[in-house]
Amino acid sequence: VLYLIPTPLAPNPHLPTLPTWAESLLPELQIFIVENTRTSKKFLAKTPNINFDNLQFFELNEHTTEQEKSDLAKLLPTFSQNIGLMSEAGCPAVADPGAFIVAKAHTLGIKVVPLVGPSSIMLALMASGMNGQCFAFQGYLPIEKDQKKKKILQFYQLSKQGQSQIFIETPYRNRQFLGDLIQFLPLHTLLCIAYNITGQDEFIQTQTLQYWQKNPPDFHKKPAIFIF
Amino acid sequence: VLYLIPTPLAPNPHLPTLPTWAESLLPELQIFIVENTRTSKKFLAKTPNINFDNLQFFELNEHTTEQEKSDLAKLLPTFSQNIGLMSEAGCPAVADPGAFIVAKAHTLGIKVVPLVGPSSIMLALMASGMNGQCFAFQGYLPIEKDQKKKKILQFYQLSKQGQSQIFIETPYRNRQFLGDLIQFLPLHTLLCIAYNITGQDEFIQTQTLQYWQKNPPDFHKKPAIFIF
Repeated sequence: VLYLIPTPLAPNPHLPTLPTWAESLLPELQIFIVENTRTSKKFLAKTPNINFDNLQFFELNEHTTEQEKSDLAKLLPTFSQNIGLMSEAGCPAVADPGAFIVAKAHTLGIKVVPLVGPSSIMLALMASGMNGQCFAFQGYLPIEKDQKKKKILQFYQLSKQGQSQIFIETPYRNRQFLGDLIQFLPLHTLLCIAYNITGQDEFIQTQTLQYWQKNPPDFHKKPAIFIF
Repeated sequence: VLYLIPTPLAPNPHLPTLPTWAESLLPELQIFIVENTRTSKKFLAKTPNINFDNLQFFELNEHTTEQEKSDLAKLLPTFSQNIGLMSEAGCPAVADPGAFIVAKAHTLGIKVVPLVGPSSIMLALMASGMNGQCFAFQGYLPIEKDQKKKKILQFYQLSKQGQSQIFIETPYRNRQFLGDLIQFLPLHTLLCIAYNITGQDEFIQTQTLQYWQKNPPDFHKKPAIFIF
């Protein structure tokens, strides 16, 4: 079995760090494919009864080369035990490169079991008030200004046709991205800004671009989701 | 506060029915806006310390008229207590009409807090192995055959460009929908079929349409997600 293991989005002392399934499942796993070994070890360290001596970690992230991916894919059928897949935060194989290993598991006939946990995309969408019956996650936009403008205008048309458009941005570019939206789109456009979701300072508000222009949120370097 | 309360997708005696937050939060709420009063009462009945005498339920679903929606929107600012929003199953305001009341809450300055819980869309996407960095939830397709074919071919083009396409269908039409895909799309197309997610007979597999043609899944009348 390949278990898809969601991890916490934000530290919050009022929330239990681990769901109840984690305490029984995690100590049984010895092989982990992870986006970031350090954060995964930190997460596992909070679980009772984990013996780190026996654990093997394989990294799969945006720095993984095609050759390394191919090597990992070849290892997959040799594992005689259950495997855990973990993202740096949130749900693995969504907005990270983990889908590669899940696809491989399907071709090898390995059973894939997704576990329930936090997804910043889904939590932001639920709480946005935007259309949740038709939506697209567009990920990151191009960095080059003209290309970015073209994409933003194209996605704005889809939004006007009723499909909610969901984006993430590298946290230190949040302010610039909001500035781009204010520059390129009509100021009456509704934009949901959600940051530090599940954290103590969780912020989720849907307002017009005009409102955001006058009341810029304090979200520099904080993980954020944008929806229009 | 408007709490967005996810509910279980499928009965499973091996999973705890309620997340830990539910036992402390739910007994404090007396006003619920729900997709289906009966299923919500059934869910609440499993929570300790719920006093049904004090609870008020308001329904919001696909049968709610514009007049009833407008009446509910007018009631919203008169509630002096926290409110819970619940879908029939899974995350409220995603693939159901609940977003209407969330949008209203934002315009009234009511804080919106989404709680972590199961989303069949997200669980299916994670476990599909399909691209999770760019995806669209297209909801239900038109029933009329020519219109449906047109939409399927259009979404197939988006899928070829790298955007995973996610669909739901009314459970008794699952077999027909699979038949349509087999008829309209190339047989080498990969399709993920996921049904009874989180249930004891959870099924999630990604195979070619050719495979599905030869090995049709046993999913008649079961809630399913399709991804290509």
